[in-house]
Amino acid sequence: MELLTDLYELTMAAVYFQEGMYEPATFSLFIRDYPPNRGYFINAGLDEVLSYLESFQFSQDDLDYLDSIGLFSADFLHYLHSLRFTGQVRAIPEGRLFFKDEPILEVTAPIIEAQIIESFVINTINLQVLLATKASRSVHAAKGRGLIDFSLRRTQGPDAALRIARCGYLAGMNGTSNVLAGKRYGIPLSGTMAHSFVTSFPDELDSFRAFVRVFPQNAVLLIDTYDTLSGAEKAVRIAKEMEEQGLQLRGVRLDSGDMLKLSRQVRELFDREGLDSVRIFASGGFDEYKIQKMDRQGAMIDAFGVGTKVGVSADAPYMDIAYKLVKYAGHPVLKLSSGKKTLVDEKQVFRTEEDGRPIKDTIALSWEELGGEPLLRPVMESGQRILQPEALEDIRQRCRQELNRLDERIKALESPETYPVELSSELVKLQAEVVHKVREKELGES
Amino acid sequence: MELLTDLYELTMAAVYFQEGMYEPATFSLFIRDYPPNRGYFINAGLDEVLSYLESFQFSQDDLDYLDSIGLFSADFLHYLHSLRFTGQVRAIPEGRLFFKDEPILEVTAPIIEAQIIESFVINTINLQVLLATKASRSVHAAKGRGLIDFSLRRTQGPDAALRIARCGYLAGMNGTSNVLAGKRYGIPLSGTMAHSFVTSFPDELDSFRAFVRVFPQNAVLLIDTYDTLSGAEKAVRIAKEMEEQGLQLRGVRLDSGDMLKLSRQVRELFDREGLDSVRIFASGGFDEYKIQKMDRQGAMIDAFGVGTKVGVSADAPYMDIAYKLVKYAGHPVLKLSSGKKTLVDEKQVFRTEEDGRPIKDTIALSWEELGGEPLLRPVMESGQRILQPEALEDIRQRCRQELNRLDERIKALESPETYPVELSSELVKLQAEVVHKVREKELGES
Repeated sequence: MELLTDLYELTMAAVYFQEGMYEPATFSLFIRDYPPNRGYFINAGLDEVLSYLESFQFSQDDLDYLDSIGLFSADFLHYLHSLRFTGQVRAIPEGRLFFKDEPILEVTAPIIEAQIIESFVINTINLQVLLATKASRSVHAAKGRGLIDFSLRRTQGPDAALRIARCGYLAGMNGTSNVLAGKRYGIPLSGTMAHSFVTSFPDELDSFRAFVRVFPQNAVLLIDTYDTLSGAEKAVRIAKEMEEQGLQLRGVRLDSGDMLKLSRQVRELFDREGLDSVRIFASGGFDEYKIQKMDRQGAMIDAFGVGTKVGVSADAPYMDIAYKLVKYAGHPVLKLSSGKKTLVDEKQVFRTEEDGRPIKDTIALSWEELGGEPLLRPVMESGQRILQPEALEDIRQRCRQELNRLDERIKALESPETYPVELSSELVKLQAEVVHKVREKELGES
Repeated sequence: MELLTDLYELTMAAVYFQEGMYEPATFSLFIRDYPPNRGYFINAGLDEVLSYLESFQFSQDDLDYLDSIGLFSADFLHYLHSLRFTGQVRAIPEGRLFFKDEPILEVTAPIIEAQIIESFVINTINLQVLLATKASRSVHAAKGRGLIDFSLRRTQGPDAALRIARCGYLAGMNGTSNVLAGKRYGIPLSGTMAHSFVTSFPDELDSFRAFVRVFPQNAVLLIDTYDTLSGAEKAVRIAKEMEEQGLQLRGVRLDSGDMLKLSRQVRELFDREGLDSVRIFASGGFDEYKIQKMDRQGAMIDAFGVGTKVGVSADAPYMDIAYKLVKYAGHPVLKLSSGKKTLVDEKQVFRTEEDGRPIKDTIALSWEELGGEPLLRPVMESGQRILQPEALEDIRQRCRQELNRLDERIKALESPETYPVELSSELVKLQAEVVHKVREKELGES
C-alpha cells in the first residue's frame, strides 16, 4: 500500500531529497468542522495507521513502476528503497471522544517520512472516524435495542464494509452480517434469510420449515416476501411446530411497508399466541433518524439491521479532515489560505471534567501543563509502536463509557449543542506571532 | 475475498445443501430508482466481478473459521471446500449507458453458487456504477476542460480510491493523483504540491524555485498558501526565470477563496506578462455542480482537480441496487414486498436508435427478438470468461461515444428528463401471470 499515495507526496519528497531537507517536521491531523448534525467524533483507525507506519517500505515492484513514469532520478529511487518510518506519533486512543479543531494525531519525523504517509493516514482515520461516529449515533438512538450491521452490499467497497463492521462494533453495535469482518476482528456474526430464499421454495411455509430444520437455534424468518401479516401467521405456525419439539423460534424480520403499524400487528399476533419470546427484527433504510422516529412512535421492534445509510454515512459521507504541517526544523509554521486556518506547533488537548463528566477541552501547546486530562499520548517512538494493538472489546468499553458521560445535548441527533473547545493563551499568543511574522515576510505587511 | 459475504448467504446455502436444492437459479442485478438528479447510469465493475467468479474458492483458512463459529455441519463445510462457480453470466459491457429497472447483469447457476456471490457482486457493481456515473457528470460539466481525480485522501477507503481513479478515467477524466491506481490501471498520473511544501521553506519563492529546479517540465505551483495574488506574482517571477533558461512554467493551482474572481485576476496577470501558456488549475470542493457554476460565470480555469465530493459521490452516496432471484428450477419467481417489485425471469434489454441516437429501451424476456440492439451479452459460460479483460482505453472510448449520442436533456445535471424504458408485452403478460399465481398460492386470493 506504499503507493497508495498522491503523486505530489513523491514529487515533494524528491525536492526535499534534492534540497537535503531532512529536518524533523510535525504534522497535525484534525477535523475542521462538524458535518451536519454532528456534535462530537469517536476516534478510530489508529491501530491501522500504526501497523502501516511500522511496516512502511517500498517494494522493488513499486520502485520499478516509479522508475517507469520517468519523473524521478535514480538517486531518489535509491533513497526511497531504504526509506522507513522512523518518527514519533502522539495520538488520542481509539474509542475516545474528540471535537473539531482538536489534533487527533501528531506525527513528528524527518519531513519526507512525515509527508509521504499523508494520504494513507488521512484516508484511514477519516473513514473510521466517520463510520464510528455515525454508528454511535445509531446506537444512541436505539436506546439499548440490538443493532446489527447489514451494510456490506452497499458500502463504498470492501474496505469500507470491513471498517463499518469494526467501527460499528467499537461504537456499541452488537454484530455484523459480514463474515470476513467476523473472522478478521472477532465480531459476533448475525443473519437472517433473503427474499430469494423464500421465493426459491414452492411456498413460503416450506421455506420457513426448511430453514428451522437446519438452524433451529438461530432462525429469524423474513416475513414480508409476499405479505407481512400472512407471513407472520405462517411464522406463528412454525413457532408452534417448534414448540412441540421443545424449540423456540428466535424471531422474524420485517423489511418493507409501514414498520410502525406492522410491528405492532405482528407483536400483537405473537403475544396473542403466547409467543412473547419471538423477537421482531426490522431492516430497510434504518439509520439514527429512522430508529429515533420508530422509538418515539412506539414501534414494537426489538432489534434493527442497519445497512446502507449507516454504512456510507449517507447524511454526511465525508468530513473536512486535514493533515497539516505545523512545525518544521524547530519553527512553528502555518498557511493563511482563506477559511482553512491551521493551529501552529505541536499541541496537546486537555479535557476538564466536572462530576465525572467532560465539560470543556483546551487545545494547548505540547509543553504546557494545564489542568485536566491530556488526551494525546505517545503511541510510537522511533518508528516502533509503544501502543500495542488493543482488544476491540476494550476499545468498545472505553467508547461506551465516554458516551455515557457525555451530555445529552451534545449527543442530540439534530442540532446538537457545541461542546466548548478553547485555545490556551500560550497557543493564541504563538499563533498571533506566527501569523504576524508570515504576513510580514510573505505579504510585505508590517 | 470469498468470506466477504453476508452470513445469511452461507446459512441459506446450508439449507439448500441440506434440502438437495441444486437446480439452476437466475438472479438479476438492477437499480430500482435514480438517485437525485441522475438520468442515466454508466456501467462499470464487470471485469472485477468476472475475475472474482472465475477464481472463486474457499481457502482452508476460511473453512476453519466457518467451522469455528459452530453453525455449519462438517458435510456442508466439505461441500464448500469443493465449491466453484460453474454458471453463466450475461451482462451489459462496461462503459455503456443503462437506465433504471434494466438488468445490468444476470447470473444463472446452481442456486448455491448464484446466491453465495450476491454480496460481492452487488458491492462491486454498486460502487463502480455510482462513481463512473458521478464522474461522467463532472466530465459533462467541464466541457472539455481537464479533470484530475484528487480524491484519494477522502474516499471511503482504499478500494474506493482505486475505483474512482479507474471509473473516473473510464468516464472521461484525464488522470489521477493516486499512484497505486496509476500502476494498477495504467492511468496517467498528475499532481502539484501541498501547502506543507510551501510552508516548509523559508519563503514561498524559495519553495517554488526548489520545485521547478527538480521538475522543470511538470511544475504546477500552488499559489494560495499565504495570499493568492501575491503567490501569483511570485509565480510570474518564477515563470520569467524559467523563460531565461528556455523553460515554460506549466501552471498554477488555486485552492481557496473566490475562484471566479481570483481565476480572472490571475489570468489577467499572466496574460499581461505574456505568459499565456501558463495554465490555471483549480481544486477545492469541485463537483459537477460547482464546475458548471464556474463555467457559466466565466471563470478562467483550464483544468479542475476533483476530490472528495466526486470520490464519495457526495450528493448521492448510494443507489437502490438489488440482486434478485427471478427464476428457479425453470419457474419464474418474484417477491411482492411493497415498493420493491422485481421483474420475473431471464431478460434482455433492447435499445432503439433514431439518427444514431438512443431514443428508447425495452426490457423483454430473454428469448424475445425485438428490434433494436440487445444490450446484455454472454460474458461467462460454465464458470469460464468469454469476455476477456478489455483495455481501459477501449471502455473509455465506448463510454465517450455513448455519452456523445445521449440527449442533452437526459444528461442535464439537475432535474434531467426520464429516458423512456418500456416493458415488452410478453414480459408484462408473464409478470401478471406470476403475480396472480403467487397471490393465489400465498395469500389465498383467487
